Amino acid sequence: MRGRFITLEGGEGSGKSTQARHVRDWLRARGREVVLTREPGGTPLAEAVRELVLRRWGEDVNAATELLLMFAARAAHVHGLIAPSLARGVDVVCDRFVDSSYAYQGARGIDAVHLRALEALAMPQIMPDLTLLLDLPPEQGLDRAQVRGDGNRFEAETLDYQRRVREIFLRRAAEDPARCVVIDASASVDRVSAAIDAVLQARL
Amino acid sequence: MRGRFITLEGGEGSGKSTQARHVRDWLRARGREVVLTREPGGTPLAEAVRELVLRRWGEDVNAATELLLMFAARAAHVHGLIAPSLARGVDVVCDRFVDSSYAYQGARGIDAVHLRALEALAMPQIMPDLTLLLDLPPEQGLDRAQVRGDGNRFEAETLDYQRRVREIFLRRAAEDPARCVVIDASASVDRVSAAIDAVLQARL
Ligand SMILES: Nc1ncnc2c1ncn2[C@@H]1O[C@H](COP(=O)(O)OP(=O)(O)OP(=O)(O)O)[C@@H](O)[C@H]1O
Ligand SMILES: Nc1ncnc2c1ncn2[C@@H]1O[C@H](COP(=O)(O)OP(=O)(O)OP(=O)(O)O)[C@@H](O)[C@H]1O
Ligand SMILES: [Mg+2]
Ligand SMILES: [Mg+2]
Repeated sequence: MRGRFITLEGGEGSGKSTQARHVRDWLRARGREVVLTREPGGTPLAEAVRELVLRRWGEDVNAATELLLMFAARAAHVHGLIAPSLARGVDVVCDRFVDSSYAYQGARGIDAVHLRALEALAMPQIMPDLTLLLDLPPEQGLDRAQVRGDGNRFEAETLDYQRRVREIFLRRAAEDPARCVVIDASASVDRVSAAIDAVLQARL
Repeated sequence: MRGRFITLEGGEGSGKSTQARHVRDWLRARGREVVLTREPGGTPLAEAVRELVLRRWGEDVNAATELLLMFAARAAHVHGLIAPSLARGVDVVCDRFVDSSYAYQGARGIDAVHLRALEALAMPQIMPDLTLLLDLPPEQGLDRAQVRGDGNRFEAETLDYQRRVREIFLRRAAEDPARCVVIDASASVDRVSAAIDAVLQARL
């Protein structure tokens, strides 16, 4: 039996990495074999691309370049880790996935037609079974992320940009309720985890 | 006045880098300002992507990943160097460009529909004014490249693959004779340069 593919999405500092570990532990406690991974990244080549795309380059990185690097990393990740794991019956929990491309590159004005073309090329037949969208006002997320302090190129973007990112995440979740659940991420870690538990219980 | 954009294409060791320098010198001798550049590469970010895409990874690099990395580098190159140079009236001579993606990734079975979608995203409104296709049986080109000896991931491909690459180059040149000229690259360096001079004289 094919494994289950669960993604966590949301803005900077919304708690994706924290709750991705929680989802992994929840599945393991129920006897499932689980791979916890992240985007961009997840294979040696994709992690090398991650480093390029998050680095603060002197030259301004244009939106098409950024988008193509994200999908190059995704193609390597799907091909090298996600698809083979699911095929072996292993569950995959992924910290960010394709919704982040729609949100972050869409917020730079990239037309959705390009995103759909790239999906068809990079990840044929792979969509998450469940996506948890950790929703939070960007101010709060950036505050949390700054405490942690390893600012990447996206955290350095304007608040206005982060608000467009949030809007696109919420719109995509509303358009695909069979896959996406919006979680209020402004509560404490434990309360967010409890909300996630309820979703996992109901959906898996 | 917009500068002229000239690309050199062809298989491994066909003489692209050698003749690209010759084209640059030919233009400079006629008082033109010229940028000589190459793909993948041409900006710091694109050169970093070049290193990733040519490196011999342990994991097999799937065709979609390779294609997306090539177009990510191209988008950075067009945006950061090619388009601004042409706009300033500077000529650009480029060692490989989009025909190489059609040939090398097409030879891996990537459908041309994906290539056209990527062109629209990565390089809107940028096509070479003149493309010199240095045509050579792959055996000869690989012999030359091996003498030079810094084998990358593409040189390590089978002869059968290199033959498909050559076929696609020739087909594209035949389909677009207003842009492409096929040069017999099996002759000596000087004779190939002389053949190129005649084309430059006639076309520019
Ligand atoms: N519900 C929460 N309440 C308060 N702080 C939290 C909460 N969840 C996570 N944090 C803290 O906020 C910071 C960011 O959390 P985390 O790294 O999980 O977010 P993220 O969404 O993965 O961030 P990034 O987008 O930067 O990867 C961490 O220091 C984490 O401990
Ligand atoms: N017409 C020629 N006859 C013989 N040798 C040549 C000729 N043109 C180039 N060479 C030699 O062949 C080798 C490959 O040439 P060059 O580097 O210009 O090719 P290339 O097409 O750029 O190769 P690559 O695809 O590996 O970048 C070099 O050592 C070069 O000096
Ligand atoms: Mg994180
Ligand atoms: Mg060369």
